[in-house]
Amino acid sequence: MIAPTPLDSRRRAARPHVVVVGGGFGGLHAVRGLRHAPVDVTLVDRQNFSLFQPLVYQVATGALSAAEVAVPLRAVFKRQRNVRVVLGEVTGFDLARRRVLLGRLANGGRGETLAYDTLVVAGGSQYSYFGHPEWEAFAPQLKSLGGALDIRGRVLGAFEAAEVEPDAERRAAWLTFVVVGAGPTGVEMAGQIAELARDTLRRDFRVADPRAARVLLVEHAPRVLPQFPASLSRRAQRALCKLGVTPLLGHTVVDIGAEAVAIRGPDGAIVPVAARTSVWAAGVTASPLAAALAGAAGAEVDRAGRVAVGPDLTLRGRPEVLALGDMVAVHDATGAPRPLPGLAPVAMQEGRYAARLVRDRLSGRATAPFRYRDKGNLATIGRSRAVADIRGLHLSGFPAWALWLSVHLAYLAGFQNRLLVLLRWAASFLTHGRGARLIGAWSPPEEVPQRARDVA
Amino acid sequence: MIAPTPLDSRRRAARPHVVVVGGGFGGLHAVRGLRHAPVDVTLVDRQNFSLFQPLVYQVATGALSAAEVAVPLRAVFKRQRNVRVVLGEVTGFDLARRRVLLGRLANGGRGETLAYDTLVVAGGSQYSYFGHPEWEAFAPQLKSLGGALDIRGRVLGAFEAAEVEPDAERRAAWLTFVVVGAGPTGVEMAGQIAELARDTLRRDFRVADPRAARVLLVEHAPRVLPQFPASLSRRAQRALCKLGVTPLLGHTVVDIGAEAVAIRGPDGAIVPVAARTSVWAAGVTASPLAAALAGAAGAEVDRAGRVAVGPDLTLRGRPEVLALGDMVAVHDATGAPRPLPGLAPVAMQEGRYAARLVRDRLSGRATAPFRYRDKGNLATIGRSRAVADIRGLHLSGFPAWALWLSVHLAYLAGFQNRLLVLLRWAASFLTHGRGARLIGAWSPPEEVPQRARDVA
Repeated sequence: MIAPTPLDSRRRAARPHVVVVGGGFGGLHAVRGLRHAPVDVTLVDRQNFSLFQPLVYQVATGALSAAEVAVPLRAVFKRQRNVRVVLGEVTGFDLARRRVLLGRLANGGRGETLAYDTLVVAGGSQYSYFGHPEWEAFAPQLKSLGGALDIRGRVLGAFEAAEVEPDAERRAAWLTFVVVGAGPTGVEMAGQIAELARDTLRRDFRVADPRAARVLLVEHAPRVLPQFPASLSRRAQRALCKLGVTPLLGHTVVDIGAEAVAIRGPDGAIVPVAARTSVWAAGVTASPLAAALAGAAGAEVDRAGRVAVGPDLTLRGRPEVLALGDMVAVHDATGAPRPLPGLAPVAMQEGRYAARLVRDRLSGRATAPFRYRDKGNLATIGRSRAVADIRGLHLSGFPAWALWLSVHLAYLAGFQNRLLVLLRWAASFLTHGRGARLIGAWSPPEEVPQRARDVA
Repeated sequence: MIAPTPLDSRRRAARPHVVVVGGGFGGLHAVRGLRHAPVDVTLVDRQNFSLFQPLVYQVATGALSAAEVAVPLRAVFKRQRNVRVVLGEVTGFDLARRRVLLGRLANGGRGETLAYDTLVVAGGSQYSYFGHPEWEAFAPQLKSLGGALDIRGRVLGAFEAAEVEPDAERRAAWLTFVVVGAGPTGVEMAGQIAELARDTLRRDFRVADPRAARVLLVEHAPRVLPQFPASLSRRAQRALCKLGVTPLLGHTVVDIGAEAVAIRGPDGAIVPVAARTSVWAAGVTASPLAAALAGAAGAEVDRAGRVAVGPDLTLRGRPEVLALGDMVAVHDATGAPRPLPGLAPVAMQEGRYAARLVRDRLSGRATAPFRYRDKGNLATIGRSRAVADIRGLHLSGFPAWALWLSVHLAYLAGFQNRLLVLLRWAASFLTHGRGARLIGAWSPPEEVPQRARDVA
């Protein structure tokens, strides 16, 4: 038995203690689902905000500012008095002693632990670089707010560089953008860069012509949006081409540097492309918390780095430990994997399920296994175009975009943000402008790999 | 004769070339004043945006997000076709050859130069640390956007640290904030931190009590807002005390570290105060461009680092070189210094004057010496309180605050921003919330000195 640590002893009540790790879609809904439950909840996250990830790509081109896609966790749970939020980094789990290991805390404290009665881990995912982590320096990923602000500085900085670059060939390299991965995020990002170049920035430069920008969308699969029905992929591809994006289907990135990207075509030939700006949105891999959890349970992760959970989202042999969202592979009662897509609605439904399971156990009720209710799949391609697959109903063009807009506004966590996002979108739609076009404390791009200091 | 550099040769017309260095209030108004003049203008800045400095302190507490106080320079001059914007860092001047020396350009180019017929330098100012530049690591200054975002992360991070700090004494140090300098910026900042603690964050924590926060406002002079009439200083002080700020008048900071600030009182005794968060807003000094310009002209700067200019804002013996704003000391025709306050209206009027001088010269007209039209002085103290000195008319309380609000909204550069700021303020006023309460990629405060990666 470990003595209570300061973090433990400062809990006020002696009710069952639920620790939720991660304040993304899954964690947020798990905590909210426990608002009337007779438990104490501790939500641990490295960041003091929850990110509305489906809109992060809009930050990367200056259409939205950071505060419009992120809401402070404390603001979300201000009125839910059975929750405390702890800013700290979880580095491991001691499942036998029922403790979460905290690598560091907001006050600089290290090595503290946190006791739980029930643990819910919702660490999410990130993009993987096909075993080449060194590529990240040249192609930041579109998952975190930091990544989005980094990309914003690079994309806008590339146009600035082109404006003062006297050599035509080098100028063309500054105006070449490579987006890796044609899932919804990559498609959205490529469309936004093309719009930025052809529309927002059209009259902003005097020497460089932003309309000469090339946006290459590299995808290993033979079509864009491979998760969608083929007919919608075709429509999305047509919309992308109209915007000026060049999809390179059946292509793979084999190397990325500061000045060029090497791309292998379907014929196996490798072509180097002179490009100074790349964005990564391919190859999802689970949060390292999945491996930490699996390791603590004596289990292994799957190829995507995910930890296996049963039909009730618990770890095998550890009914008090739940995991959910992008970092888990759900298995059915026979032990067969039943993969779910890495989408926000999945994480939200799983978060609500985890809360229900905790409540049911407290009142001695049984809980049916988790079942995902597929609400459909949406992706947007620039201003006023989108594709939607709603349980077999296929929409595209403006109706799909209107649906996309209303769904995203409806889900935005804080009301103030929702109103502001709506207003900024309206303004941006009417003026074709982008209000948050700020480049961080500017440093010369030749010093890549750098992490531009982010300003939003 | 130096051969034309790429930057020179890419100008399209052969009209007189005006180079404006710095896109703050002064530079912006100089460029705008030349919109109908038969000249080519090049505006050089290190950053791609102009900062609305009077509101930067609101970014530092999360009331506004960065994009709401910064407008992209290219957006401002999109329609002014005789201007090109160059993102680059000016490091010196060759006045004999009429060239600006660029340390680096957006494309990574180094050592380029830019030829001018008329040069306007508007580099602004920053805070000085009384000869202790090493203090900046512990007390960032409230001048730049980067500084404001750094401060925001530290202030919000201090409350987070207090929440997980078990030791009462250390917790008190996390909840102690020192603001150095009780000019308008320091007063505004201290008031905002006090409001953040007592109002916005009041219900956000479960263990730490934000209302226990102490905000010390250290000022060498015997009263706050020493630039204002004594009666307004008294009212401002009363308003500050009501908000929970402790003014330490006649006090001087003699040392700053990661965990404590040493303060000398009026009696000469030095008292160490355990405080983990400090903000610097004292001791204005001119931009290093002032010294570069003075050096190039064989002149010297004054004690505040400012370069001397004549009554028409030109450098002695260099009628084609103008300098303006916080970085200059204006002298009258007899050579006697006629100091002007370091305020945005001074820089704006000087910028407009510089443009008029250029236009007058082109059409052979004489220009009367620059004369500052004093529009008054404003400072705000938290929500709905302010003081105003309008040509001897003294206002305080809500009327002064309403005036402050309308003046600042009227001057905000871009319309979209103005609307959004108004809306966010309205929302924040009604809800007592602060929407942009994001802490950058969070790192443990014990590693100070650090520059928190800024996220907005």
